[in-house]
Amino acid sequence: MNYSHQFIPTLREVPADAVIVSHRLMFRAGLVRKLANGLFGYLPLGLRTFRKVEQIVREEMNAIGALEMKPPVIQPAELWKESGRWDAMGESLLRVKNRLDNDFIVTPTAEEAFTAIVRDELSSYRQLPLALYQINTKYRDEIRPRYGVMRGREFTMKDAYSWHANEESLDNTYQAMGRAYRRIFKRCGLSVIPVKADSGAMGGSGSEEFMVESDIGDNTLILCNSQTQGLCEYAANVEKAACKADFSCDGDNAAANTPNYEKIDTPNVRTIEELCAFLKTEPKTFIKTLIYRAVNVELDLSSAPGCGDLKANKPSQGSPGVYAHAFFAVAIRGDLDVNEVKLAAALKASEVTLASDLDVQRLTNAPVGFAGPVGLQTLPLIIDQSVTAMTNAVTGALAKDAHYKHVVYGRDFEAWKIEDIRTVKAGDLCPLCGCELYTKMGNELGHIFKLGYKYTNSMNVSYLDENGKTQIPTMGCYGIGVDRTMASVIEEHHDETGIIWPVSVAPYHVIVIPIKYDGVVKEVADKLINELTASGIEVLLDDRSERPGVKFNDADLIGIPYRVVIGDKGLGLVTAQVEVKNRKEKESCMVDVDKAAKELIQKIQEELKIYNS
Amino acid sequence: MNYSHQFIPTLREVPADAVIVSHRLMFRAGLVRKLANGLFGYLPLGLRTFRKVEQIVREEMNAIGALEMKPPVIQPAELWKESGRWDAMGESLLRVKNRLDNDFIVTPTAEEAFTAIVRDELSSYRQLPLALYQINTKYRDEIRPRYGVMRGREFTMKDAYSWHANEESLDNTYQAMGRAYRRIFKRCGLSVIPVKADSGAMGGSGSEEFMVESDIGDNTLILCNSQTQGLCEYAANVEKAACKADFSCDGDNAAANTPNYEKIDTPNVRTIEELCAFLKTEPKTFIKTLIYRAVNVELDLSSAPGCGDLKANKPSQGSPGVYAHAFFAVAIRGDLDVNEVKLAAALKASEVTLASDLDVQRLTNAPVGFAGPVGLQTLPLIIDQSVTAMTNAVTGALAKDAHYKHVVYGRDFEAWKIEDIRTVKAGDLCPLCGCELYTKMGNELGHIFKLGYKYTNSMNVSYLDENGKTQIPTMGCYGIGVDRTMASVIEEHHDETGIIWPVSVAPYHVIVIPIKYDGVVKEVADKLINELTASGIEVLLDDRSERPGVKFNDADLIGIPYRVVIGDKGLGLVTAQVEVKNRKEKESCMVDVDKAAKELIQKIQEELKIYNS
Repeated sequence: MNYSHQFIPTLREVPADAVIVSHRLMFRAGLVRKLANGLFGYLPLGLRTFRKVEQIVREEMNAIGALEMKPPVIQPAELWKESGRWDAMGESLLRVKNRLDNDFIVTPTAEEAFTAIVRDELSSYRQLPLALYQINTKYRDEIRPRYGVMRGREFTMKDAYSWHANEESLDNTYQAMGRAYRRIFKRCGLSVIPVKADSGAMGGSGSEEFMVESDIGDNTLILCNSQTQGLCEYAANVEKAACKADFSCDGDNAAANTPNYEKIDTPNVRTIEELCAFLKTEPKTFIKTLIYRAVNVELDLSSAPGCGDLKANKPSQGSPGVYAHAFFAVAIRGDLDVNEVKLAAALKASEVTLASDLDVQRLTNAPVGFAGPVGLQTLPLIIDQSVTAMTNAVTGALAKDAHYKHVVYGRDFEAWKIEDIRTVKAGDLCPLCGCELYTKMGNELGHIFKLGYKYTNSMNVSYLDENGKTQIPTMGCYGIGVDRTMASVIEEHHDETGIIWPVSVAPYHVIVIPIKYDGVVKEVADKLINELTASGIEVLLDDRSERPGVKFNDADLIGIPYRVVIGDKGLGLVTAQVEVKNRKEKESCMVDVDKAAKELIQKIQEELKIYNS
Repeated sequence: MNYSHQFIPTLREVPADAVIVSHRLMFRAGLVRKLANGLFGYLPLGLRTFRKVEQIVREEMNAIGALEMKPPVIQPAELWKESGRWDAMGESLLRVKNRLDNDFIVTPTAEEAFTAIVRDELSSYRQLPLALYQINTKYRDEIRPRYGVMRGREFTMKDAYSWHANEESLDNTYQAMGRAYRRIFKRCGLSVIPVKADSGAMGGSGSEEFMVESDIGDNTLILCNSQTQGLCEYAANVEKAACKADFSCDGDNAAANTPNYEKIDTPNVRTIEELCAFLKTEPKTFIKTLIYRAVNVELDLSSAPGCGDLKANKPSQGSPGVYAHAFFAVAIRGDLDVNEVKLAAALKASEVTLASDLDVQRLTNAPVGFAGPVGLQTLPLIIDQSVTAMTNAVTGALAKDAHYKHVVYGRDFEAWKIEDIRTVKAGDLCPLCGCELYTKMGNELGHIFKLGYKYTNSMNVSYLDENGKTQIPTMGCYGIGVDRTMASVIEEHHDETGIIWPVSVAPYHVIVIPIKYDGVVKEVADKLINELTASGIEVLLDDRSERPGVKFNDADLIGIPYRVVIGDKGLGLVTAQVEVKNRKEKESCMVDVDKAAKELIQKIQEELKIYNS
């Protein structure tokens, strides 16, 4: 392909809102242009790489037997009302009315559409397992789209869905997807961190996120230090991360030696910091007690303290029903923080928030700052497992300006429930191997997830098993963001002069730059290009009448893996030579004209083999 | 690919709304499913053919140097307001508001988006010509979607746009597109009728539609009878079709011999039929005069009869301005019909409709049925060229129950404008060769069109020419409906048992049906499939434990070009044999096992070569 017939509008300037490398380089290299906030168009050069990433995803999906489909992008609201997501998705769901005033959505994911199609065709266990996927346009009405295609409103996602007769079958497909995802990212040249989104310590593996390290990542990752040596694989999203409980080592004896608890005057001392200063001690000797308001609680609260008046809505089969909201006291060691995602999961609540000052006063009979577990009757008490090891603690005394000291868990108070609800931090210990944990910021590129019966239940999907009995299939879902994957490749592979594409996703493998595309130089260039092209190597010929410096800068910016410069000089030598440079390396080398094609073909095929192995 | 791992839900029943063959067969063969009215999902088998059609389109676009891009599907309304189509498109444009209450559209075509991107990057004549395209999701909010994917609301279209420094360059690309379109349809196995959408007789060729013959087509095509012998190429959409004017052969002499016109009493005679009965003559002796109301008229009416009070809006450079609406008298020979598309084009109006009875009475001073050209002062008179040859005509007399006879054009009345505005019918004469014309119903699969300066003007696109002078580029646009092309292949290639795919777009080339996939039969099947696959032949193995009859029916229904049946019987012969059947033929033949793969590969490659030649 001749550069002069291409449409590669490279830029020196970058848009003011391009704050990350991939955003800047995708604009400067002429890969994308912005049509509106969060809406981008891929230009021809960008689309070449985009399609290669798509194709890698497609090949790996096909390799594990997933079947490609193409549902419409505009989908009827009815399906989303069936699944309940019409209400649950909020404003990020782009809704549209057609000329007949019917409701539709622009699809952000497609659990409903795939499930609706499968529902109509599924009759027998013999059709299971079934895995279907699409690579298609999606839309999420992000409040603040930014970082270019990394967080756009319209994007392309590969989303796969699978249906199964049992857990084992689901797990097989889930594991196969996990392996396929690792291959996909490897083939794109990406270092991903597979992160168990739920606690690996609990033995579960119903969800795994594939993260790339990124300063602008919106996920905090908790990683095990011994991982770098390949000894331990623990990696988790901070939202779900667990750690080894660091129990007091003096155990029960210590508690036996603790004096009875007693009330102390603590005038105007409300925060942990004030208390530390007042008592001249450290935060970890306190039990911090917080009052939370939880929404849509699915725990059975019928015998929980202070919950006698609560009524659960819509109790259904096997479920205690849902409480619209309920208050809880949550106790944790003073140096730790409550992880609200973990707390919500423990309470089976859709959301938890700190209670208002008024609610705290009403429920603890004391001003904010003096809540404590001892003598608390008005609320169910949830304690973090860190509290169970505290043998001589300070707590609020449920009265203004008063605390208790010498408080012992089990002796002076009992918990309604003990849970792991602490926020894991760098320095905490790995729940698997006990090594120190550290943190990184990460961006999610992919996610595999065991959905279970959420959609098959709500959308009435069933089949007949071997015995002719009606059964409901279980489901998995598996997504990869194509745009974000492409942008992440640039984040990982660039230098100060531009992109450095891995050969596997490079828009072209080789750029041939004749100093002047004419005469002998032209002959040599054309011959080289013919040989390369015949072997499936994709070549961009820079036939423009620009200065060499301009051509070199553009070649570096658009990141073509190999550059061949053909000048009069090299050709005048006894052995005619061309200059070959790997974009990854600083130095070029001179190669005999006769050998250049063969050498390039070999190098590129070897590199491709490594990516695809 | 094993059939048992596929998702091919074939059906005996068809949905009640499936009235055309392709709709019925696409459902029955498990190619598509309906998610809502006009919204379809392609199932895996259907998507395989869909992607092949897409790929043929892509290859032919790339072959003529068009560059693929991918703008977003959701586009900002601002661009559509710039071009004027936000208002002009009406309710077929699907509009959507995001969470910030900003207006967007789901794109039906993308002149605006492509032009906006090119506008920002185009600076020099050296960048021209430039042709860009996408193959992407589109949406048109059809009032009555029907015929399956043939007229859906969401669909996939290849749309290309080109920009040029001059007419000649535009014409080069336009001609190349025309040739590419012919190749695309040929490669898909389709017989298309390229139809000049404007009059070929006028020498212009700024628009060409690619039609397939179809009983449910929404276009009437006018074709020249000598076309079947390759003598004349005239083919036109009836909306634009011209014909040879059939002038009266007695010419001026006849007019000179006509007596002066005189009023006759015609009590309650209002229609041509009543008049024929009353005067015992034929319709072609009458001049029919109709009153039309035209909207957004861009003709200069400043000196037209009866238009003195009209005011043109927004007169701009080189334009007489636009009249919101105006009335016209339109006269045509009594046996002919006015073609309102041609009339609107002649009046440069966006729409023409017959005036209301009240308007007719007000403007002609007579009840409906008595309008006529003689003495008409209140309206501009447009006459069809057929009227200019009438030398002794009957017309309405602009008074109740009265007509004139012996009316002669030029002697008794003059026209404000003479135009070709008749509807061409079967039996009229070809404007090119004079042979008889005939009609067919057709469906439009593609359209190429010289847009000119409409978008580059309204959206302020410019570049600097060789002399550094600012110029506005001219534009072309070129569309193909992918879904409709695929459905049309089925319309052309099927029989009573199912689809008969051309090998070029077949989801698989060969279906191998072992009578029982086990033992020797399995060995023979696997070996055959390996040999075929190694040569790039795509094979579906029907490994299901169904009765042979079920397998044969499904194979016929889904239309795989070659069927190989492997049974115990054939293998027991001295020379082991398999049964090979071409889907197009009634009879199968027995082929030696050893030769089957080679023979099939040869046949399929030959067929592919013919499609692609």
